[in-house]
Amino acid sequence: MKKATRQHTKEHNRILVLKTIFDHPSISRAEIARTTGLTRTTVTDIVAALLDEELVTEIGVGESQGGKSPILLSLAENSRFLLSLDLSHSEFRGAVINLRGEILATACLPVEGRSGEEALDLVYQILDQLIEAGFRPLVGIGVGTPGLVNSPEGVVIQAVNLDWENLPLASLLQERYGLPVRVLNDSQAAAMGEYTYGHGHLAEGNLVVINARHGLGAGIILNGRLFPGDGGGAGEIGHVVVQEAGSLCRCGNYGCLETVASVQGVIQKVKELAPGSIRSRDSGMQDEASLDAIVQAYTAGDPQVKQIVSDSARYMGLAISGLVGVLNIQKILISGDMTHFGDAWLQAVREAVSQHSFSRLVTETHIDVGQLGKDSILLGASAVLISHYSLLFRREMASEPL
Amino acid sequence: MKKATRQHTKEHNRILVLKTIFDHPSISRAEIARTTGLTRTTVTDIVAALLDEELVTEIGVGESQGGKSPILLSLAENSRFLLSLDLSHSEFRGAVINLRGEILATACLPVEGRSGEEALDLVYQILDQLIEAGFRPLVGIGVGTPGLVNSPEGVVIQAVNLDWENLPLASLLQERYGLPVRVLNDSQAAAMGEYTYGHGHLAEGNLVVINARHGLGAGIILNGRLFPGDGGGAGEIGHVVVQEAGSLCRCGNYGCLETVASVQGVIQKVKELAPGSIRSRDSGMQDEASLDAIVQAYTAGDPQVKQIVSDSARYMGLAISGLVGVLNIQKILISGDMTHFGDAWLQAVREAVSQHSFSRLVTETHIDVGQLGKDSILLGASAVLISHYSLLFRREMASEPL
Repeated sequence: MKKATRQHTKEHNRILVLKTIFDHPSISRAEIARTTGLTRTTVTDIVAALLDEELVTEIGVGESQGGKSPILLSLAENSRFLLSLDLSHSEFRGAVINLRGEILATACLPVEGRSGEEALDLVYQILDQLIEAGFRPLVGIGVGTPGLVNSPEGVVIQAVNLDWENLPLASLLQERYGLPVRVLNDSQAAAMGEYTYGHGHLAEGNLVVINARHGLGAGIILNGRLFPGDGGGAGEIGHVVVQEAGSLCRCGNYGCLETVASVQGVIQKVKELAPGSIRSRDSGMQDEASLDAIVQAYTAGDPQVKQIVSDSARYMGLAISGLVGVLNIQKILISGDMTHFGDAWLQAVREAVSQHSFSRLVTETHIDVGQLGKDSILLGASAVLISHYSLLFRREMASEPL
Repeated sequence: MKKATRQHTKEHNRILVLKTIFDHPSISRAEIARTTGLTRTTVTDIVAALLDEELVTEIGVGESQGGKSPILLSLAENSRFLLSLDLSHSEFRGAVINLRGEILATACLPVEGRSGEEALDLVYQILDQLIEAGFRPLVGIGVGTPGLVNSPEGVVIQAVNLDWENLPLASLLQERYGLPVRVLNDSQAAAMGEYTYGHGHLAEGNLVVINARHGLGAGIILNGRLFPGDGGGAGEIGHVVVQEAGSLCRCGNYGCLETVASVQGVIQKVKELAPGSIRSRDSGMQDEASLDAIVQAYTAGDPQVKQIVSDSARYMGLAISGLVGVLNIQKILISGDMTHFGDAWLQAVREAVSQHSFSRLVTETHIDVGQLGKDSILLGASAVLISHYSLLFRREMASEPL
């Protein structure tokens, strides 16, 4: 709890007005005053400053409510641009994104097993390409990376696949590009993306997004804000043990959720138990190709594959029922490539949740597939930057660390 | 997000000063100004009002820091009193509690199987007794009850043992006693108690308290505030399935954590598998007596009982590892009668957590027994009232619903 001063009040109200304009396609000064409870004079002063900053534009005249027709204001969505990275797949993806979450340019480079410094070099290459696209002004860089992340300090504590350990990614990028940087775990970024752009921007709401791709994790939004946990590891449900005496996980334990309900887990099981389903393909093929083959076998009704995929849904449901028990959050979305298994799989997940949960809690719980597809992490990493509204004001641009 | 006004600023700063005085045994005006960042003038004005309200007293003179010796201020701990109830045991307990969490009077009545209206009548009897003790002014009633609770509306949605369903407990008590009422789930109350009085009042911290008694639940404190979940059921981990094809739970599912790790669960298992351990006692005896007998058999090394208790610790550990994975909260306390099994049991819980958790998360996680013993729920229910500081100001006393 910090002291409240008039300066604090002024800043608070400025952000409140900007947020209100963000939340509407167009809005008049009078409506802003009604929505926020601020006086007309205060709103007029703040809007004047936002127009001056070019964050807001006057886009025309609305319908009269009796008196003079009001001037409509709208967010100047292309007045600032964000760079965003998704490092969670077999190719690194980057994008230039505007203030409405529209992707204006992208850059992709295959990882091909690179790790450590080489993987970092790929990050630089993608950012260099995106910067060359010429969108200005750029106000920050958001990164969604696999692994355990200390977001306040911008450090990747451990990302096994990339062989990064205690990598100060935010400082490195900030030094190189002179922009504020925010680094997030990929599942936490996916949650921010779905919350901000997919699920409809619910004020102060709660949301869990389960991101089931090569690995498996979750992002938790509490009261409208990402909850990182004490060590940045909130949502690390991929390493919760769901099957005693199960398969060895890359974390060293046995029977983690990731070994049965992630893409790599399912591919591994199919290779062990139903190798015929993907036999005809190149054994060195990427996750994506293997997954496609397994989805085809599943759809075609291959009994062994069906069993493996049903098991994955059941364990996913078991883990979700644990989440429902702990948090009683009623809106749960699943994103990532595992959702390619489609409606039957989703239905099996829902049934497992019902079977394993306290009925009074689960009847109000809704489990769906996320709306953003493969863009959720990119959009989420940029949304985290936008949620620091003060970053958008010119005086702070490119100067203040997050 | 609401508008900030000067009135809001003033209220915020008044609470900030009161909170600062709460957090210190004694403190001078100059120290308050330093701690809060407010000006001396503002602090002096606010303190004058708090002295006038008799919430704060001048208790003497501190050491000079060079100039005039400063007058020390302290919370007037007996200037307001709270009534608090714990309905989670085989006897209902009530207490009169002061602003420092000291229990000044108690009243207890055995439930003896009463439920519905009869159980409600017991609640009235206890409150009547406590009010007769004569402590004044009373500023509110806090209730910790088993079951699913809608705290914002003060409704007990479902408390199976008491046969309460959609009981508007807060309105009933408020109407009868003319005091603000706050109703909480018992495990959520235990968490508030340990957070406020046991664990040391950490500003803005995170804490999970697992309350393992007749039933089993948890309370979750996030950023210094109780997190209720969307439906009031956050922390309902007693009904997370930990054992596929396990025993039937009173919720209708099989293998819930409560069936293996709660007092009733352990008693049930001992009756089924090792009836000899409690054979000599009256078969109709209370939980408390049965538990004592089982603890004795455990301590004496009865192999069947040891197995049952070890299993309970293992499943408790499994559930905690799920919590650690979801929330990455590093401070976890266990309260309730199950802690009577002592250090060996606690150590077994910790080992199970280590075995089932992602090592990077669990190394920083600390699991201990709570410090308040059987008072945690009473103290927590009163702490929730105190955390609404505005309730303590005279103009609002006994008038404003929570």
